[in-house]
Amino acid sequence: MENVQVKKVNITKVSNGKSTICDDDLAAEEPLEIRLIYGKINERKKKNISVTMRTPGNDKELGIGFLFTEGIINNSEQVSGVNSEGNILEISLNENETPFLNNSERNFYTTSSCGVCGKSSIDAVRTRSQYKGIKDNICVKGEMLYSLTAKLREQQSVFKSTGGLHASALFEPDGKLLLLREDVGRHNALDKIIGSAFMNNELPVNNKILLLSGRASFELIQKAAMAGIKVIAAVGAPSGLAVDMAKEYDITLIGFLRNERFNIYSGENRIIV
Amino acid sequence: MENVQVKKVNITKVSNGKSTICDDDLAAEEPLEIRLIYGKINERKKKNISVTMRTPGNDKELGIGFLFTEGIINNSEQVSGVNSEGNILEISLNENETPFLNNSERNFYTTSSCGVCGKSSIDAVRTRSQYKGIKDNICVKGEMLYSLTAKLREQQSVFKSTGGLHASALFEPDGKLLLLREDVGRHNALDKIIGSAFMNNELPVNNKILLLSGRASFELIQKAAMAGIKVIAAVGAPSGLAVDMAKEYDITLIGFLRNERFNIYSGENRIIV
Repeated sequence: MENVQVKKVNITKVSNGKSTICDDDLAAEEPLEIRLIYGKINERKKKNISVTMRTPGNDKELGIGFLFTEGIINNSEQVSGVNSEGNILEISLNENETPFLNNSERNFYTTSSCGVCGKSSIDAVRTRSQYKGIKDNICVKGEMLYSLTAKLREQQSVFKSTGGLHASALFEPDGKLLLLREDVGRHNALDKIIGSAFMNNELPVNNKILLLSGRASFELIQKAAMAGIKVIAAVGAPSGLAVDMAKEYDITLIGFLRNERFNIYSGENRIIV
Repeated sequence: MENVQVKKVNITKVSNGKSTICDDDLAAEEPLEIRLIYGKINERKKKNISVTMRTPGNDKELGIGFLFTEGIINNSEQVSGVNSEGNILEISLNENETPFLNNSERNFYTTSSCGVCGKSSIDAVRTRSQYKGIKDNICVKGEMLYSLTAKLREQQSVFKSTGGLHASALFEPDGKLLLLREDVGRHNALDKIIGSAFMNNELPVNNKILLLSGRASFELIQKAAMAGIKVIAAVGAPSGLAVDMAKEYDITLIGFLRNERFNIYSGENRIIV
């Protein structure tokens, strides 16, 4: 079966001044248009919410996760159906449900690897989590954290062949891998994880560890906060605003998780060293 | 003087089971609201175009570069003024100039590390470059390419202290560094480079090498194509769609530029091995 997440190409490899022609695998990247269908039966409305460049696969999770982490929907009972066909995803709401479209009604757009798009003022880059202030009793052994990145790489099938994908993963506090998603966009990988939890009624995810394969930007922390996540470990560096956000939501934020070391930027109390 | 690109925090470092508390530098990340002012003197319109999460610094380049790579403006004579104040950037057009806002008029938004935002259909993720088909005579020695990543890291001042920033840089074909920009968002770093060239009337940039510190996504290649760039070298992997785009625009695309080796994905004719 063809793997839609990988695209095969012919390339020239150059090494030590010698070139050879060979086959290579690349991570697939395709636009996904996310549409929302809502309103009374005889007055159904269809709204284009987003076009996101993503690696095909788990599109339903991605679309649902996006709507949830952007605050457009807030519980799975609002959703009556999800239909995926090629690069189009249509999410239908039950007829009495009203999506929260305030932020998406504004007439402008943006481009940024942070992904905070289409909000009409600087205050509006913030979404509000229904899980702010939620209690948790998760605590994690520092030594156990060392093993997570190796577990991630072992399971990252598309990364193995292409060397070019971000990943997000959920682990139990004891280090057991629960769910892994890959994507060319780091926000998409996280939306897929959260979309899966949303569809399986597993929110809030306040007793698991979220691992991010790259850097921790403001928006990734904000998405995690929307899902009630309390412990985030990133292989790369956090930004200043990411740390502020983690502190505000009482999230434990770990960065530079590599080679038996890491930094704790907030919420040290959940980590046992 | 305070460096606005860096934020100082207190962290807990854990290494080999021991923890110490120390100071640390993080890459700053702040929202920038880009506004466009245009129209006849007595009927001036102000439009919010974008809120992008960026590392402060070179905001004018970023805003101008964004408008240009998104196809909203196409030459520097359209611009009458750029005003930057904190996290707000206002770009004014001369009164007879009409911005091309087709793609930004649509009512929706997106989030993605690719950054293709706010376009209302899948066809619309594509912008059109005025430099498509432009001639060039750039050719590059393979050995010289090996030196570029070290030159980039040497000059990446914010990365050095934070370990957490993307960069884009322009080099002469002989390897001389011309311009370097850093940002938490890879698209922003490239928009800053292209915005600088735009403001200095240096477009098209068809006789320079563009170096990208990370992966090469579709949208980075598209932005480069808007500026007429013909040779792109990325430290990371390209996506499948990035390679398609490079081929369509006759761009030489190099990936995995590390440790005396690299891969050529398109336009081999410009590389001398």
